[in-house]
Amino acid sequence: MLSPKVSDYLEANFPRHLGSLCELLAIPSIANMHDDRDACQAAAQWLVRYIRQLGMSAQAIRTSDQEHDRPAVVASLHVDDRLPTLLMYAHYDVQPAEPLEQWISPPFEPVVREGMLFGRGVSDDKGQLMAQLMAIEAYLKTGTKLPVNLKLFYEGEEEVGSPNLGSFMQASANLLKADAAVITDVGWIAPDTPSIAYGLRGLAGLEVTFTGPSRDIHSGSQGGAVRNPINALAALIAHFHDASGRVAVEGFYDDVLPLSDQERRQWQLLPPSAEDDLADLGLECFSGGEEGFTPTERRWARPTLDCNGIVGGYTGRGAKTIIPSTASVKITCRLVPNQDPQKIAGLLKAHVQRHTPPGIKAQFIDHASNPPFIADIDSPVIQAGREALAETTGRQVAMIRCGGSIGAAEKFQTVLGLKPLLMGFDLPGCRIHSPNECISLEQIKLAARTIATFMDKLGR
Amino acid sequence: MLSPKVSDYLEANFPRHLGSLCELLAIPSIANMHDDRDACQAAAQWLVRYIRQLGMSAQAIRTSDQEHDRPAVVASLHVDDRLPTLLMYAHYDVQPAEPLEQWISPPFEPVVREGMLFGRGVSDDKGQLMAQLMAIEAYLKTGTKLPVNLKLFYEGEEEVGSPNLGSFMQASANLLKADAAVITDVGWIAPDTPSIAYGLRGLAGLEVTFTGPSRDIHSGSQGGAVRNPINALAALIAHFHDASGRVAVEGFYDDVLPLSDQERRQWQLLPPSAEDDLADLGLECFSGGEEGFTPTERRWARPTLDCNGIVGGYTGRGAKTIIPSTASVKITCRLVPNQDPQKIAGLLKAHVQRHTPPGIKAQFIDHASNPPFIADIDSPVIQAGREALAETTGRQVAMIRCGGSIGAAEKFQTVLGLKPLLMGFDLPGCRIHSPNECISLEQIKLAARTIATFMDKLGR
Repeated sequence: MLSPKVSDYLEANFPRHLGSLCELLAIPSIANMHDDRDACQAAAQWLVRYIRQLGMSAQAIRTSDQEHDRPAVVASLHVDDRLPTLLMYAHYDVQPAEPLEQWISPPFEPVVREGMLFGRGVSDDKGQLMAQLMAIEAYLKTGTKLPVNLKLFYEGEEEVGSPNLGSFMQASANLLKADAAVITDVGWIAPDTPSIAYGLRGLAGLEVTFTGPSRDIHSGSQGGAVRNPINALAALIAHFHDASGRVAVEGFYDDVLPLSDQERRQWQLLPPSAEDDLADLGLECFSGGEEGFTPTERRWARPTLDCNGIVGGYTGRGAKTIIPSTASVKITCRLVPNQDPQKIAGLLKAHVQRHTPPGIKAQFIDHASNPPFIADIDSPVIQAGREALAETTGRQVAMIRCGGSIGAAEKFQTVLGLKPLLMGFDLPGCRIHSPNECISLEQIKLAARTIATFMDKLGR
Repeated sequence: MLSPKVSDYLEANFPRHLGSLCELLAIPSIANMHDDRDACQAAAQWLVRYIRQLGMSAQAIRTSDQEHDRPAVVASLHVDDRLPTLLMYAHYDVQPAEPLEQWISPPFEPVVREGMLFGRGVSDDKGQLMAQLMAIEAYLKTGTKLPVNLKLFYEGEEEVGSPNLGSFMQASANLLKADAAVITDVGWIAPDTPSIAYGLRGLAGLEVTFTGPSRDIHSGSQGGAVRNPINALAALIAHFHDASGRVAVEGFYDDVLPLSDQERRQWQLLPPSAEDDLADLGLECFSGGEEGFTPTERRWARPTLDCNGIVGGYTGRGAKTIIPSTASVKITCRLVPNQDPQKIAGLLKAHVQRHTPPGIKAQFIDHASNPPFIADIDSPVIQAGREALAETTGRQVAMIRCGGSIGAAEKFQTVLGLKPLLMGFDLPGCRIHSPNECISLEQIKLAARTIATFMDKLGR
C-alpha cells in the first residue's frame, strides 16, 4: 500500500500541480519535421527548472548537431546504492494542432470543462509526464524515502518518430543506466479497464510525388492525351490494397509474426479496443482493414498502409480546368513484429516504381520510421506495474497491445538492455492527435498515485 | 483583297494597339467561382470606354441578379440596312494565374521577350479580343466603309463555364440579333497550319468529398479499423477508368457520336494536334487516354474524365500520423457530341454513390457544365473565314476540332439560331491556362488583318 502521507500530499496539492501542468501545456512545443523549435527549447528549459525545484539534478541535452534542436531533458536522484534504479520516460513535444478551427478552445490555452482538461498534448503526453513529477514530489516533499533511485528522460522528438533517439541513448548510455524502465505514453482499452501494454506497432513513412507535365496544362486541349498525375496517383494508392483489405505491396507480410491462437482468445475476453467512440467519430461501424481479423487484432497485431495526406492540382474554391503537373501523397505503414521499417520502405518504393505508368515520374521523401516492439509479460517491472494499477483502481488489469508507435520502447530494449513497462493513462475519447484533446482531472490524479505506488512495488 | 489603307493602318498603328492590349492585360480580371469581381468590372468598363472611342455605342450589362457580377460588354454599329450583321464574340475574363512562382514575369505585368508578349490572358482571350477592335478601328479611322453591320459581345464568365450566358442571351436576343457570328477563342493545330475549328468538347464538372471519421484521428490507434477517406477516394478515382483507359462510369458512352471513317482519314492528313511541345512539358510521349484512338482523336472527339485537384489530410511539410476526416477531388469530364452534361453529371454521382464504401459518406458540389458543339463546315460564315485565313497566310486552312469548351458556341446555335465561325489565333506553346501564357506579336497582327479580311469577305 502507498504511504498515506504520499497519497494525502497528492490529493492536497492537486490544484497547484494542475496549475503547473497548464503552464507546460501553454508552451506550443509542436514537433513536426519543419517546426519552429524555440517552443520545444522553452518547454525543455521549463522542465529543467521545475525538476530542479523538486531537488533533483536536471539538464537539457542536445540530441543532434543541428543548431536548433529539440533537447532531451535528463534528470537523476540517487537515494541508496542498495535500491534499484528506475528510468522514467515521457515526451514533452506535441502533435501539430491543425485543423485549428475545430478546437472549441484554443489548443495552447488549457481550460477545464466538466471535469476534463483540454489542450494539445494534455493526454499525449504532457499530462502523463507531469504525473511522474507529481509522484516524485510527493515522496520528496513529505520526507518519505524514495523506494528507488531515479532517472528521468523526457524526449522532445517523439512526435516526429524520434530520429535522434538511438544515437542519443548510445551516447548517453551511462547517464541513462538503470535497472528498470517505465514509459507513460499509452492508454487504457476502455474507461473501466486499467491496462498495461506489452506491444507496440512500428512505423515506416514515405512521401511519393508523381510528376506528369512540367506545368499545369489545359484539360480541354490535352485531356485524353496526357496522363493525369492525380488519376495516376489514385490508381497507385488503390493498388496498395487488394479486395480483401490486405496490403498488396510485394513482400509486405514476409516477416509478420502470426498471432497465436492463445493471444487471440485472450483478446476476445477484453472490451472492444475502441480508442474513440464510434458516435463521437460520426461513424456507424468500424470498417476497412484486413478481412479475417477483428478490429482489435487489426489495430494491435496487423500491419497497415494509410494515406495521411494528399494534394495535387487546384485546391482552391470553385473549379480550374487543368491537368496538374504534380500530385503527392504522404503514406505511413504501421508495422508489427518482426517487420523491419527500412526493408518495408524499400518494398514500398519498389512497388511505387513498378506501378508508375508511362508519362509519370516518381520521387520520394523518407519520413519517420520505428521498429515494432513486444515485451515479456512476466518481467518484474511489468508485474510491479500490474500490481500497482490493480491496487489504485481496485480492478483487474488488462494486458494489451497498442496500435501506435513509441520509438523509445524498442530503443530501451536494444540500446539500454531494458524491457520497459508501458503504463499509461489516456482513455478512449481523449482525442490524442486530434482537435479538442483532453483528459479527465481524475485520471491525472490516478496516474500520479499509480506511479507512486509502482515505485513502491518496484523498490521492495 | 483587303484594302491597302486598312492593311497599312494596322501595320502603322500596331505599337499603339499593343500598348492598349497591355493596359487590358494589366487588369487581373480572373474568373473563378469565388473571385474578387471588381477586376472584372474594371475590365468591362475599360472596354466600354475603349469601344466608344472607336465611334461605336457600347455598354456593360449585368448578366445576373447578383450584386457583384462580371458584366457582359455589348456594342454595336449600324452601317447600312443592306449589309449583313456580324456578331463578334470574345471574352475578357481569364484563368487564375496560380502557380504564381512558375511565372518568369508577373502574370498581370505584360512584357515582350523575343517577339512574344507574356501575360495571363494574352492568348486566351484578350489578345484575340483586341485584334477584333484593331480590325474595326482600321476601317473606321481610315474612312473605309465597313463591309458589315457590327455587334460585339465580350463575355466575362467564360472561364467559369458561362453560367449566365444562356439566360443573358435569351434576355438580350434582340440586342444580339445578327446574320452571322464569329468566335475568336481557339487556336491553330500547328504554327504553320492556319486552322478553323468546327467542333468543341463540352464540359461536366463535379467536386466529390469523402468523409470518414468526423475528425482527423491517430493512425496508430485506429489504423486498420477505420476506413481512410484518402485511400477510399483513391480507389473511387481508380475505378473511374478501366484498364484500357476507357471511362468506366456506367452509361458514360451511351450517347457518344462515333467518329466517321472519313473524319478519321482527314485528321490523319493533319499535323499532330500537340497544343504544347512534348519537350516543353518535360514528357517523353503522349500517354494516357483510351486505347484504339490517336492522340488527336482522343483530344477532339473522345470524352475524358480528369481530376483537376485533390486534397485531404495533412499537406504541410513533414509527416503527421493521422487518418484524415475528409478528402476531396475536383473532376471535369470533357464531353463530345451528343453527350449531355446534366445527364453525365448524374451518371457520375450515381457511380460515386455505388462506389462509396461502408464508413464513408459522399457529398457533391456541382461545377460548370457546357454541352459539346459541332458546326456545318459548308456554311457561308465558315467559308468566308476559311478564305480570309487562306488569303492572309497564303496557306491551306486545316479544318479541325478543339478539345476545349466554349459555352458561347453552343448557345449561339440554340439561342440565337447562328452557327458561329470558330476562328482563333493561339498557337501550340501559347500556354493557355498555364504559367507564362504568351502569344507572338506577329500572330496578333495577323489576327487583326485576318478579321478585317473576313469582314470584307462576309460583306460581299
